Amino acid sequence: MLKPLANRVIIEVNKEEEKTVGGIVLPSSAKEKSQTGVIVAVGEGLVTDQGTKIEMTVAVGDQVLFEKYAGTEITYDGKDYLVVKESDIVAIVD
Amino acid sequence: MLKPLANRVIIEVNKEEEKTVGGIVLPSSAKEKSQTGVIVAVGEGLVTDQGTKIEMTVAVGDQVLFEKYAGTEITYDGKDYLVVKESDIVAIVD
Amino acid sequence: MLKPLANRVIIEVNKEEEKTVGGIVLPSSAKEKSQTGVIVAVGEGLVTDQGTKIEMTVAVGDQVLFEKYAGTEITYDGKDYLVVKESDIVAIVD
Amino acid sequence: MLKPLANRVIIEVNKEEEKTVGGIVLPSSAKEKSQTGVIVAVGEGLVTDQGTKIEMTVAVGDQVLFEKYAGTEITYDGKDYLVVKESDIVAIVD
Amino acid sequence: MLKPLANRVIIEVNKEEEKTVGGIVLPSSAKEKSQTGVIVAVGEGLVTDQGTKIEMTVAVGDQVLFEKYAGTEITYDGKDYLVVKESDIVAIVD
Amino acid sequence: MLKPLANRVIIEVNKEEEKTVGGIVLPSSAKEKSQTGVIVAVGEGLVTDQGTKIEMTVAVGDQVLFEKYAGTEITYDGKDYLVVKESDIVAIVD
Amino acid sequence: MLKPLANRVIIEVNKEEEKTVGGIVLPSSAKEKSQTGVIVAVGEGLVTDQGTKIEMTVAVGDQVLFEKYAGTEITYDGKDYLVVKESDIVAIVD
Repeated sequence: MLKPLANRVIIEVNKEEEKTVGGIVLPSSAKEKSQTGVIVAVGEGLVTDQGTKIEMTVAVGDQVLFEKYAGTEITYDGKDYLVVKESDIVAIVD
Repeated sequence: MLKPLANRVIIEVNKEEEKTVGGIVLPSSAKEKSQTGVIVAVGEGLVTDQGTKIEMTVAVGDQVLFEKYAGTEITYDGKDYLVVKESDIVAIVD
Repeated sequence: MLKPLANRVIIEVNKEEEKTVGGIVLPSSAKEKSQTGVIVAVGEGLVTDQGTKIEMTVAVGDQVLFEKYAGTEITYDGKDYLVVKESDIVAIVD
Repeated sequence: MLKPLANRVIIEVNKEEEKTVGGIVLPSSAKEKSQTGVIVAVGEGLVTDQGTKIEMTVAVGDQVLFEKYAGTEITYDGKDYLVVKESDIVAIVD
Repeated sequence: MLKPLANRVIIEVNKEEEKTVGGIVLPSSAKEKSQTGVIVAVGEGLVTDQGTKIEMTVAVGDQVLFEKYAGTEITYDGKDYLVVKESDIVAIVD
Repeated sequence: MLKPLANRVIIEVNKEEEKTVGGIVLPSSAKEKSQTGVIVAVGEGLVTDQGTKIEMTVAVGDQVLFEKYAGTEITYDGKDYLVVKESDIVAIVD
Repeated sequence: MLKPLANRVIIEVNKEEEKTVGGIVLPSSAKEKSQTGVIVAVGEGLVTDQGTKIEMTVAVGDQVLFEKYAGTEITYDGKDYLVVKESDIVAIVD
């Protein structure tokens, strides 16, 4: 299990749909990177320089939309995840 | 439904009027990007490092003018939106 | 009506006088940009990260001198305005 | 009258002495820019993000030495002034 | 013994597995740098400008995942370690 | 007299010793710049954004060692001085 | 005696061992710079903008490991020292 630190969350990114142009499958560089996924782990919140812990406003299971190019890609147990800070999450998708 | 986080708001950007020069419709790169729109969703406010939640001063339904190049364009349910931080909103248009 | 947010003010910039050299009107790029104008709308003041609202020290009707290159030009109701933050206002002209 | 905002002061810069090399007056680019002047107007002090007003430590009439390249040159009533922030004033000359 | 200061931790980085392409061992530049390791020493926590000591949330023995390119490599007693700040630790691996 | 503002101090820089190579005096660009001097005037201390005045820890008469390239050179009454901020003073030489 | 200011410490850097390749002593540029030394003087601690004095956590006599390229090299009484801020000290070597 991965336990993210501070204000980080671990996201299982949604698969991008294949793009085809007239039936031809485009190579991966031509695909748009997905910006949505589901949260699988949440940190305990950032402790700021003032010693205040900022509570997280997202939770495990939330479908979220995140900033393009945010976070770090990691591989764990053969699966790929994205680790982003909560401030890089744009919106929760209900 | 999209629920923006922190001090973000989701804006339905106003359509830019077609520009025509002597009846000829100009290609999109020649159009000026619209800087106005209507707010469709509002975050709960930024919690600062001091642990203070800053209340939002805009609301759903507000017509707003925002900074050029601000925010992130997203597509949701087949419609395009712009997500900006409240600090990128210049003025409310009454 | 435009209602500026936070510490922004809306300024009606003073017209620059035509520059003529020996009777020849100079093209606009040769004119110096005006740095003075009259305030037509004032925000409610910036709420800082500490949750403190900083009161505005300028008011509607003030003739002001502002930093060169400050702010954003906007067009509203067919008239041009400049939106600047109060911190970009150098002095009030009495 | 000009009333500077926040921590700004308005300075009447001392005239630089003409530099002559063997009796030949040098063009202005060869003159060193003066870094001294007398304060003609003082702002009310900066209000910081904490809501604290920082009192000014210089006053009208003070002869001051300021940082090279500091501030904004303005013209008012046909006279040239320099507007600098108090933090750009190096020392008071008694 | 090494006693890290402030919010630093000392990590014994996990060995990267040899990569072989068709049985040929690749030179080290072709190996991916490991981003996991075990913590062998922990600082006492950062004292911020407010005089607040931020307690550490990781402990000796934790298996951790850290940001790529984070920290400083050191050699002590003939062994290599990585010293990173706690803020560069992405997650604890349970 | 020069009265430095905030956390500034005025330093009379120690003369660098002439460097000679085999009896030949080197031109000034070949001299190392002195980093020591004696303090001749001290500001009243910086007032921070919190409204706190930080007391100065150096005094007139202190021999000090300062950061290379720190501060502003000024000429006053025909003598050269260096104005630096206290944070640019490395150590007091007893 | 040198008395460092604020959060600075003075370090007597450990000599790097001569590197020889097949008995040939390498010129100094080929030597790795030492990152360890012993503290010979300690400042009284940084006073932050909040007026809080941050106590030093290192002491005279500590063997320390410091960040590569940190600090300022000084010469005093014919001996070379390194002046670094406490935040550039990675660990104490017990």
